[in-house]
Amino acid sequence: MTSPAVVDLLGLLAYGELSSFEQMAADAQKAPSLEDKAAMSKFASGEFEHYNRITTRLKGLGVDPVEAMQPFAGALDAYHKQLVPSNWLEGLVKSYIGEGIASDFYREVSKFLDNETAQLVDDVLSDNGFADFAIERIRAACENDAIMAGRLALWGRRMMGEMIAQAAVAATERMTLAQLFASDEQNNSLADDLNGLVNRLTVGHARRMDVLGFAS
Amino acid sequence: MTSPAVVDLLGLLAYGELSSFEQMAADAQKAPSLEDKAAMSKFASGEFEHYNRITTRLKGLGVDPVEAMQPFAGALDAYHKQLVPSNWLEGLVKSYIGEGIASDFYREVSKFLDNETAQLVDDVLSDNGFADFAIERIRAACENDAIMAGRLALWGRRMMGEMIAQAAVAATERMTLAQLFASDEQNNSLADDLNGLVNRLTVGHARRMDVLGFAS
Repeated sequence: MTSPAVVDLLGLLAYGELSSFEQMAADAQKAPSLEDKAAMSKFASGEFEHYNRITTRLKGLGVDPVEAMQPFAGALDAYHKQLVPSNWLEGLVKSYIGEGIASDFYREVSKFLDNETAQLVDDVLSDNGFADFAIERIRAACENDAIMAGRLALWGRRMMGEMIAQAAVAATERMTLAQLFASDEQNNSLADDLNGLVNRLTVGHARRMDVLGFAS
Repeated sequence: MTSPAVVDLLGLLAYGELSSFEQMAADAQKAPSLEDKAAMSKFASGEFEHYNRITTRLKGLGVDPVEAMQPFAGALDAYHKQLVPSNWLEGLVKSYIGEGIASDFYREVSKFLDNETAQLVDDVLSDNGFADFAIERIRAACENDAIMAGRLALWGRRMMGEMIAQAAVAATERMTLAQLFASDEQNNSLADDLNGLVNRLTVGHARRMDVLGFAS
């Protein structure tokens, strides 16, 4: 019997990958060259492969992937609707920052997962070259353009806030996930545990903003 | 030595698949349910796989895929820009009608291709279940809604005109393609050959409009 929290985590991750697939495919349409369009489409297609692996795992656990994803569709759709990139570079910043926060989050929760699931999560969140691709293009665009750098930094800062807001919505609806953190250290309150998590994610976010050359 | 016309046909097809991938991924965002979103994303991902196979073939022929696609990017981008679906059903009609015309076109030209290329083209254009998926949903939506049926029929009719317009642009720029048809029957003028092709494609288009329950 798989714990409801693990099913939730896989459902959330599956829908996240499906959303990233759509986001990256939309970004490919805004690519400034055919080379970049081809590369971005390849990254998008990779997200779909991840989605495929996660839903296959869910089916293997006897869970309908659609049922597992459904509880998180609203919050993730709202996140993406709040943050529609208006150009190629905003799309790159969004995916780089978003994938980073998601990876950090899943690294935090992987201790609650069985080995096989943890390995799958690690595989689908491991870097496939997108980070370098994005960093290189964002840095090049900002190098001699302080206005662009300022705009993209502002955009990057919005990610973390929106993500926390939507995570709070999702957590309220799915107490199984929030309780996962509470179950870890009995001495802490759930609020303390979640605050600790958010703080650690914020540190990772600041590090990535720094990599892009943005003050966070 | 691969003929320039074959490289052109593969370049056109590759860019067509890349565009379809983007179109279908964008359509997945408009899906009315998570089931349909997942299915549409899978079809989109399939288009990327096709694109992958064609570019791999181009590389095998010693041709840079980007160089092979570039001459057709303008015309295909213009086609898609003229026909941005405003909802889920328009997206389904567009892809069903567009894939149909493209398949008919490539069936016409496959006699000019070497066996291995013809087999590849046949593989990537063979039906993967999308046609049935689209037909079922379009018919269901129109069954008791004559206004919807009328709107979608009008939309479907626009495809053929836009495609011919953009094909004419592409053919003017790439005489190698136009000459392919002229090389077939020496007694006919190039104009006659192209008219014959357009007529045959129009028959196929009318048949698909009929399948959807639309008067063409």
